[in-house]
Amino acid sequence: MSIRIGIIGYGNLGKGVECAIKQNPDMELAAVFTRRDPKGVNILTEGVPVCAVADVAEWKDKIDVMILCGGSAFDLPEQTPEFARMFNVIDSFDTHARIPEHFANVDAAAKEGGKVAIISVGWDPGLFSLNRLYANAILPDGSDYTFWGRGVSQGHSDAVRRVDGVKDAKQYTIPVESALEAVRSGKNPELSTREKHTRECFVVLEEGADAAKVEEEIKTMPNYFADYDTTVHFISEEELKKNHSGIPHGGFVLRSGRTGWEGENSHLIEYSLKLDSNPEFTSSVLVAYARAAYRLSGEEQSGCRTVFDIAPAYLSAKSPEELRRTML
Amino acid sequence: MSIRIGIIGYGNLGKGVECAIKQNPDMELAAVFTRRDPKGVNILTEGVPVCAVADVAEWKDKIDVMILCGGSAFDLPEQTPEFARMFNVIDSFDTHARIPEHFANVDAAAKEGGKVAIISVGWDPGLFSLNRLYANAILPDGSDYTFWGRGVSQGHSDAVRRVDGVKDAKQYTIPVESALEAVRSGKNPELSTREKHTRECFVVLEEGADAAKVEEEIKTMPNYFADYDTTVHFISEEELKKNHSGIPHGGFVLRSGRTGWEGENSHLIEYSLKLDSNPEFTSSVLVAYARAAYRLSGEEQSGCRTVFDIAPAYLSAKSPEELRRTML
Repeated sequence: MSIRIGIIGYGNLGKGVECAIKQNPDMELAAVFTRRDPKGVNILTEGVPVCAVADVAEWKDKIDVMILCGGSAFDLPEQTPEFARMFNVIDSFDTHARIPEHFANVDAAAKEGGKVAIISVGWDPGLFSLNRLYANAILPDGSDYTFWGRGVSQGHSDAVRRVDGVKDAKQYTIPVESALEAVRSGKNPELSTREKHTRECFVVLEEGADAAKVEEEIKTMPNYFADYDTTVHFISEEELKKNHSGIPHGGFVLRSGRTGWEGENSHLIEYSLKLDSNPEFTSSVLVAYARAAYRLSGEEQSGCRTVFDIAPAYLSAKSPEELRRTML
Repeated sequence: MSIRIGIIGYGNLGKGVECAIKQNPDMELAAVFTRRDPKGVNILTEGVPVCAVADVAEWKDKIDVMILCGGSAFDLPEQTPEFARMFNVIDSFDTHARIPEHFANVDAAAKEGGKVAIISVGWDPGLFSLNRLYANAILPDGSDYTFWGRGVSQGHSDAVRRVDGVKDAKQYTIPVESALEAVRSGKNPELSTREKHTRECFVVLEEGADAAKVEEEIKTMPNYFADYDTTVHFISEEELKKNHSGIPHGGFVLRSGRTGWEGENSHLIEYSLKLDSNPEFTSSVLVAYARAAYRLSGEEQSGCRTVFDIAPAYLSAKSPEELRRTML
């Protein structure tokens, strides 16, 4: 019997989950839930119903794991505890500073419902966090580095779009190659914000807007751009559509550390991702952890978990024997 | 109370474990066991006894986890089951093809003794295996690549030393940069043995040996060198000692895969290690998993485990709360 997955929220992430389920033969999409009018939402999978979120309780016994595809700012702090009372749930809550609070809320709800919830699943938090943990446990004497990009930052793109005179825009975060190289060389550099990343903006101006003024306003914007070296390119709407409609991302997690009786030997652990589609990759991670939630629930576990608490074998469709034979 | 670690076998790996324990304040070295005359074995840690392996049973209640630092060919197939009846044990068994058999033997013994055994811990098998598993679970539609090096292969160095006329030698395995680049570009290349790695030998000749003959014999040696492009350098004994006495190693695990309704987006996951000292790094991994074994044993678990079965949080000295707050 395959694992019945539900999706709440059908944006880029929800659609990515739908695509990922298709790649995993031990899973099936049971239903998609939306706050919009379900009649107006067309999904890719044939024969699967689109339902109103308000009716989700009717699906209590027909869905094994619910994947929550809302945003971290407003949706998930409410939704994850709410739905964890009823379903095993997975979310991609990514407001790092608020994870302890979210964990506590979800844990209480999931325990109340006897369900398993896995929060903050994706690549950062998620796979990057795993690599930080493994590398720190193995090299206790060392330094951590995380670089993001080259990739589209939704928050920074939105900030540029709010500038007067900007019709549309896309912002890329780019790791500084020389900073990466300094880390790889084992120099353990102390890197400022400006030394680690640059920012590149592709901007479509409103008719008659003052390019110089827009550029100045972007580059001096506090929090978003003032602490970075920023490049601004003005392009046409057609060019933006043609060359900048993808949602690529990625990044690097590095730890350099020392071993030996006097710390005489140096080591570098590096993990990196290059992603054509940030939401589709994140969705693929969500789906793998949905398998884990299903299995943990089958062991009568309940409560909130993170990627730190899940033994890797739970993510794979393969049996423990097959994993040992083929991947160890 | 700190975790009391025992070491069986005091070669490069055993010494590495001793150094790693020093870096982990929640652990202490209880004793080192050797098959040699204990009086002839000098360890680095003051006040810690060196004992005969034959007396190991006397330590049953004084050691929480025993780390087995013998070789995979002859020592571990016997030792790990034997000692798993008495102690929680960690080994670095690395004969990939014999892992299922070793697992079964160790599992039976550990269950009999009510102990936890974690086998095949290190970086390959070990961290590389973990990355293969995670990447496969997340990108089911994709291709795997593992490259080793630049690093010293003990087996190949030994093979060169057995050639007539060779006094001493060191062999480096080197990944082919263009093959790595082809994988990173998402081309999913099919790579032959020769296309993935080259081999470089530094050879000290016996007096009067025929260099051309030695070089020919190395390059055509079946299994070890015939399938590779091999370079042979003849150097003096002094130069070998000065420039080639380290034991560096490392490598790369990559998975490239596709997502999207029609597989339209491509992704690359890359993990790499650059290690000054292969045995010291391996030891550091062993010690982190010793912490996990100690905790699992405290939960009344028993039997054999691999890195696939261990939730990452068990490796860290930090509490789950601190991990979520600082690393997620």
